[in-house]
Amino acid sequence: MSLVKLSEARRFMIDCFKAVGAKLKPAEQHAEILVQADRMGHQSHGLNRLEKYLNDIIYKDCEPNNEPEILTESHSTAWVDAHNCLGSTASFFGTDLAIQKAKECGMGFVAVKGSNHHGMVGFWARLCANEGLIGLAFTNSSPLLAPTRSKKVALGTNPLAIVAPAADGEMLYLEMATTAVALGAIEMRLRAHQPIPLGWALGPDGHETTDAELAFKTSMLMPLGGGEMTSGYKGYGLSAAVDMLSGILAGSNYAHHVRKWGSARGTPANLGHSFMAIKPECYAPGFGERITECIRYWRTLPPADPKKPVMAPGDVEKQAMEKTDKQGGILYLPELIEASITLAEKLRVQPMQISE
Amino acid sequence: MSLVKLSEARRFMIDCFKAVGAKLKPAEQHAEILVQADRMGHQSHGLNRLEKYLNDIIYKDCEPNNEPEILTESHSTAWVDAHNCLGSTASFFGTDLAIQKAKECGMGFVAVKGSNHHGMVGFWARLCANEGLIGLAFTNSSPLLAPTRSKKVALGTNPLAIVAPAADGEMLYLEMATTAVALGAIEMRLRAHQPIPLGWALGPDGHETTDAELAFKTSMLMPLGGGEMTSGYKGYGLSAAVDMLSGILAGSNYAHHVRKWGSARGTPANLGHSFMAIKPECYAPGFGERITECIRYWRTLPPADPKKPVMAPGDVEKQAMEKTDKQGGILYLPELIEASITLAEKLRVQPMQISE
Repeated sequence: MSLVKLSEARRFMIDCFKAVGAKLKPAEQHAEILVQADRMGHQSHGLNRLEKYLNDIIYKDCEPNNEPEILTESHSTAWVDAHNCLGSTASFFGTDLAIQKAKECGMGFVAVKGSNHHGMVGFWARLCANEGLIGLAFTNSSPLLAPTRSKKVALGTNPLAIVAPAADGEMLYLEMATTAVALGAIEMRLRAHQPIPLGWALGPDGHETTDAELAFKTSMLMPLGGGEMTSGYKGYGLSAAVDMLSGILAGSNYAHHVRKWGSARGTPANLGHSFMAIKPECYAPGFGERITECIRYWRTLPPADPKKPVMAPGDVEKQAMEKTDKQGGILYLPELIEASITLAEKLRVQPMQISE
Repeated sequence: MSLVKLSEARRFMIDCFKAVGAKLKPAEQHAEILVQADRMGHQSHGLNRLEKYLNDIIYKDCEPNNEPEILTESHSTAWVDAHNCLGSTASFFGTDLAIQKAKECGMGFVAVKGSNHHGMVGFWARLCANEGLIGLAFTNSSPLLAPTRSKKVALGTNPLAIVAPAADGEMLYLEMATTAVALGAIEMRLRAHQPIPLGWALGPDGHETTDAELAFKTSMLMPLGGGEMTSGYKGYGLSAAVDMLSGILAGSNYAHHVRKWGSARGTPANLGHSFMAIKPECYAPGFGERITECIRYWRTLPPADPKKPVMAPGDVEKQAMEKTDKQGGILYLPELIEASITLAEKLRVQPMQISE
């Protein structure tokens, strides 16, 4: 593992985006969401994805210097066309608008069409919480989820995020895909030559499998909840609801119409996101104190296994952030460092400097 | 099984509520949510619960003739005190207010404190969809869910509903508890002398059990997703988020502070709900058509088992409603009919007339 300072990882990513034609602001914004994903321990959504985003620009799937536009708006709603800009540009724009509306009117709900992948969905809800607001964020994505009983995928992992600010600077932080796990979790098992648990994925016949290789090849994820007996139809329903609240509402590509990332070069992904901000002061006083009380209570619950303490939602990310900050940077796997060196050569930018 | 006409079930329930002191309007409203639950096949939330609601009134836990009051409001938000009225009175009030705000301003989000159980949460989101709006409803409830790793309950089954109107009169309908299953599902297994699947419930040591009797006695449900390996922490996070958006926001009792139903006679339950309505016309045209297209697509997906066709979210409820309407009424189990006869005698109201 190699330690890279946050500032250096950010510098490298910005240089890469600029090298493929992005202006400074979109380059900085997109680098920021990737660096923060790495900082929070969601490394699948950080440097690991840099090249995918760069390729979107190189192959003209995405126009990194386009600007989003408000098509219609009311006091608390807005419909935005991202004009195929980077997902981060679209989502900073949408989230800022929702925040502004919530500060003025109590709440804001902004749906964005014509966008691209916007990284870790929790990033956007967290921006709202940084402003003292409840934040919700939704996005659709490429089909990977097989609806309950189906032997064909029809919906994305369609993640959602719900974040609320506590009184003491902490947050109730929920970020989750609506599938049981992400494809990356199966890939990890495959690499480690381990089987996968039942409830994660289906084989080509539409039945649950524990064969990591077959599951990875089939790429047919089960919804949160797993099989029908353990209420997997709830995860399926949640995935459908997330698309309804993002792509279907925004009029972007939706559900089975979303293409596989990078599968049709030169055509826009046209993803849909939505961002909601709610001002707690419009409701009962003491909201943040109640969140704080709950978070502390959950952490002190008696664990079934004394070696595994109970955590509040978001503690995994919080602990990862604290670890990153304490160690002075992000620890990257050797293969990620190597890929970044190859990328630096290809784009003629200065490679990432390793701290130790 | 005995067939009872909807109008007769409604008449009986209204008479019961009036017999314990409710005025006609709250009696009619509460009867309506129970009859509709039975009609949609959620019989656990219908006639089955009548006596619990009546006892709440008899023991003065609930004041059936109180009226909700708006404490503060803005264009699209409102904070309501239900003043311990029936959950249906509070929720019709809150939902109507959210609908009105959405029609005027694009969206409305109403949080209600000081309430009581309001039946099937999907009923409220469906009211929004009946008006052409997207509806979301949330409520907290008595602790039954053990957070991931905990051997103690700390949150309710905290259900949520998300409903969207399609173009052809259909709906994308999601109503779900954030636990894997409700306690009633375990009770059914216990009665049938069958084990329960892993992922449903914990024994007193905080470990998963398949023993229905032990699970029912312990009453410690696992979150949607089951154990940690199958992402049960997502269901735990969703349960926490639902309370945050209802009880914690409204300033009612919340999380571990919610009491067990009927456990402290003479004191109000002080539950919290919230209701959100969103006007699709504020976003991309053609919303309903896209919902219709998805619903039809999902129903035609190839099933893993040809005997089990794939359903759209809400098809279970839709099929139950159609069946009820076709057979001309609700089919009640003998024990429910017997309990209703005893109740009729006790309250001196006319017993339910059986159609066949």
